[in-house]
Amino acid sequence: MNYAMVLYVLGYICNVEALLMLLPLGVGLLYGESVGGTFGLTIVLLFAVGAVLTRKRPKKQTFYAKEGFVTVSLCWIVMSLFGALPLSLSGEVGSYVDCFFEIVSGFTTTGASVVANVEILSQNILFWRSFTHWIGGMGVLVFVLMVLPMAGQSSIHLMRAESPGPIVGKFVPKLRSTAILLYGIYMLLTVILIILLMLGGMSLFDSLIFSFGTAGTGGFANYAASVGHFGSAYIDWVITIFMILFGVNFNVYYMLFFGHFLQGLKNEEMRWYLGIIAVSTAIVTLNISHLYDSPLTALRYAAFQVSTIITTTGYATTDFALWPVLSHVVLLLLMIAGACAGSTGGGIKTSRIIISVKSAWQELRHLIHPRTVTRVQLDGRPVEEETRSTVGSFLTLYALIVAFSVLLLSVEGYDFNTTLSAVLACFNNVGPGIGLVGPMGNYGFFTPFSKLLLSFDMLLGRLEIFPMLVLFSPSVWRKSR
Amino acid sequence: MNYAMVLYVLGYICNVEALLMLLPLGVGLLYGESVGGTFGLTIVLLFAVGAVLTRKRPKKQTFYAKEGFVTVSLCWIVMSLFGALPLSLSGEVGSYVDCFFEIVSGFTTTGASVVANVEILSQNILFWRSFTHWIGGMGVLVFVLMVLPMAGQSSIHLMRAESPGPIVGKFVPKLRSTAILLYGIYMLLTVILIILLMLGGMSLFDSLIFSFGTAGTGGFANYAASVGHFGSAYIDWVITIFMILFGVNFNVYYMLFFGHFLQGLKNEEMRWYLGIIAVSTAIVTLNISHLYDSPLTALRYAAFQVSTIITTTGYATTDFALWPVLSHVVLLLLMIAGACAGSTGGGIKTSRIIISVKSAWQELRHLIHPRTVTRVQLDGRPVEEETRSTVGSFLTLYALIVAFSVLLLSVEGYDFNTTLSAVLACFNNVGPGIGLVGPMGNYGFFTPFSKLLLSFDMLLGRLEIFPMLVLFSPSVWRKSR
Repeated sequence: MNYAMVLYVLGYICNVEALLMLLPLGVGLLYGESVGGTFGLTIVLLFAVGAVLTRKRPKKQTFYAKEGFVTVSLCWIVMSLFGALPLSLSGEVGSYVDCFFEIVSGFTTTGASVVANVEILSQNILFWRSFTHWIGGMGVLVFVLMVLPMAGQSSIHLMRAESPGPIVGKFVPKLRSTAILLYGIYMLLTVILIILLMLGGMSLFDSLIFSFGTAGTGGFANYAASVGHFGSAYIDWVITIFMILFGVNFNVYYMLFFGHFLQGLKNEEMRWYLGIIAVSTAIVTLNISHLYDSPLTALRYAAFQVSTIITTTGYATTDFALWPVLSHVVLLLLMIAGACAGSTGGGIKTSRIIISVKSAWQELRHLIHPRTVTRVQLDGRPVEEETRSTVGSFLTLYALIVAFSVLLLSVEGYDFNTTLSAVLACFNNVGPGIGLVGPMGNYGFFTPFSKLLLSFDMLLGRLEIFPMLVLFSPSVWRKSR
Repeated sequence: MNYAMVLYVLGYICNVEALLMLLPLGVGLLYGESVGGTFGLTIVLLFAVGAVLTRKRPKKQTFYAKEGFVTVSLCWIVMSLFGALPLSLSGEVGSYVDCFFEIVSGFTTTGASVVANVEILSQNILFWRSFTHWIGGMGVLVFVLMVLPMAGQSSIHLMRAESPGPIVGKFVPKLRSTAILLYGIYMLLTVILIILLMLGGMSLFDSLIFSFGTAGTGGFANYAASVGHFGSAYIDWVITIFMILFGVNFNVYYMLFFGHFLQGLKNEEMRWYLGIIAVSTAIVTLNISHLYDSPLTALRYAAFQVSTIITTTGYATTDFALWPVLSHVVLLLLMIAGACAGSTGGGIKTSRIIISVKSAWQELRHLIHPRTVTRVQLDGRPVEEETRSTVGSFLTLYALIVAFSVLLLSVEGYDFNTTLSAVLACFNNVGPGIGLVGPMGNYGFFTPFSKLLLSFDMLLGRLEIFPMLVLFSPSVWRKSR
């Protein structure tokens, strides 16, 4: 284990977070709120820690897979620990554990909240909460790679550990320029969204809040009624379309950007993802049409809810608790399935589901015709055996983590729907569940232990299990030879 | 596809079922019930069909994997179609679809019932219902293999398709004598149980009903209160212990029988299985101890409920709906996990869970130390890559089937707990779920479509998915060259 290098990157992250906190600081100053003792103090602290840790660049800069995992996990934990400080110092949110939960929920783009009434929070806190969605959506380490040149394979290990999805392909050779480009696309889409929302009558502040939440597929809002606050069909549709766009694998935009239109549009995962959205929206629309005055209204609510759940954003425009059980089942399955790999969305990811379904199908064919050997393909290329096996292990760990978390959370004795949906909503980075943690409820009533458990689930979900679990392996912490 | 041979085996099965029906016929005659128009008629019909189909032994007797799958699936469907006839002809149970559901539930050892009040059924119907558990527990085809000598590998394909669990090993060379021995052990344990229950004060009839239900891990009872009817700690404990015994891989008894004591007791799956039972019982006992007058009573109810769920039997001694949510979560997880491979229990099976957990653990190690190559082991021997891959596909298909079934069932609009637990209870061959299909409820209120869907789930669960799915592959039905 190359401790020196891990600490160096951690220090770098502290500096980056300090810089990022200048924005909420500015928002606070602009609104005449007192932010010196909250963001001001935290920024000073972050720079101090950052300065100490990055004082000297380590001689040995090599990074292996395990260092990649450990660094990514620790970075996210450290960022959340410091990110929670301003909330805690402001006294607006509650205990430090509450603040930690809230900011982990922010960075992991979950959107689960312990705050009973968000409308009384100050503007700088609201801004920071939502801004963490935007930061966490694209990943922090990818950002660091833009500014911190690392030796050879090292950056690949970092990117691989942080990027969602089973395969990190193509972009590896030109990692740094790719990172810049991905962030460019991310920023461009966000800016377009901000403008479109303002055209719909939103204030600049509101449009920033909802653009951050949409881009990061997070879901924090500054109104209790979430997107439903605006009661605008235009805003609903704009956010619906952009949630879907941010749930697409960013590789597709990369290809479109470089003129590989056909290759981009042929992306198999995206086609499945869009197909699932279309079919689910159709089912839900039919299922709820009798509840609304026109089929178009039903379509609007159905499309919004399907998109917000499959991308694991977690916004609400209507109380879907009142919908029939078929719609609930569709939404529950979408929540678990999640969006595309390499997007800002959470969940298992469409490509993992495609790979495992195709593997099972191939297995069935093999049983019938034992002598035929076929290989699972994605985008017309065979999926490597190692990838298939990793996907299988991912799904096993996914199921185990859900099982253990539900078991531990059920000690609190709340009803089964609340317990199960709290775990699924946090682990899949969705945010609101059903029952007590539904769109109208919050996570404030859980014990600190359960809040830490759910925070851990959010991190497991966002970093896709392996990096966080690696932290628990004693062999990782052995000094390298 | 060797149609001639498939039909020949099907005819054989009809004859066997006709013989088995002589027992409920006898019971009816003994109790002075009219059974000529029900069992009498069905037996004649079965022998007629059997005679036609087995008239001439096909010249080409070779059987490949696909014929094995198709034969097993069709046998179970045909046996259920005919097995439902006496119920339908008696008019006691309801429509033919209801009777089909009830008998599929019997053969698959599920124990889910459409009957609102079992206590008004006639003795011959009650006997047949429970007897199907006993027949289905050990498998029908294994029984056929005892009497029908087949060419070379043919019987292996049949046994592999019907036997529960990921690995069919060791016994293949001496298949026929193994089958006889396994049935011998099964019968011996059943007889011991019958005697022990009668010593506890049960009538012969009752002890037969509850022994069939326990041995097959089925769960049909002839009293509305199930095992709770007797209110006897002795009976509770006897059934608890025997449910656990019937959930053990029968290979273990085979080894013990042949003096391989150490090897038998070292069986890794059994140790995990017993460990899971012990830990779960401890958790549930602690969780419910405040509800009962003594810790021993709590232990008795906890041990019974844990055993009845993990073995997927589905008996009840108390209304566990009143227990805290932690106990519910434990029971739900046990229901999915299921008993050992090669036992009469359902669910995913302990060995599949061990293999996939070990695979995931190995994957994690591989990520940390990419250069170390370790192989997953079970019972000290490496698990073949093919087995691991089949386990992975099994779990994928398992999840997909649950998802699709819940989706289709939710169209009926019953609450989520009822919908989800109905699917899980049928697919895992448990029987009672929660909500409307809880221990005090039944499955009678579903539409015929849903009853057929759940019947299909029960068959998928009992035959472990692959054989039933093979039926849907068009390539299977092509005439062989």
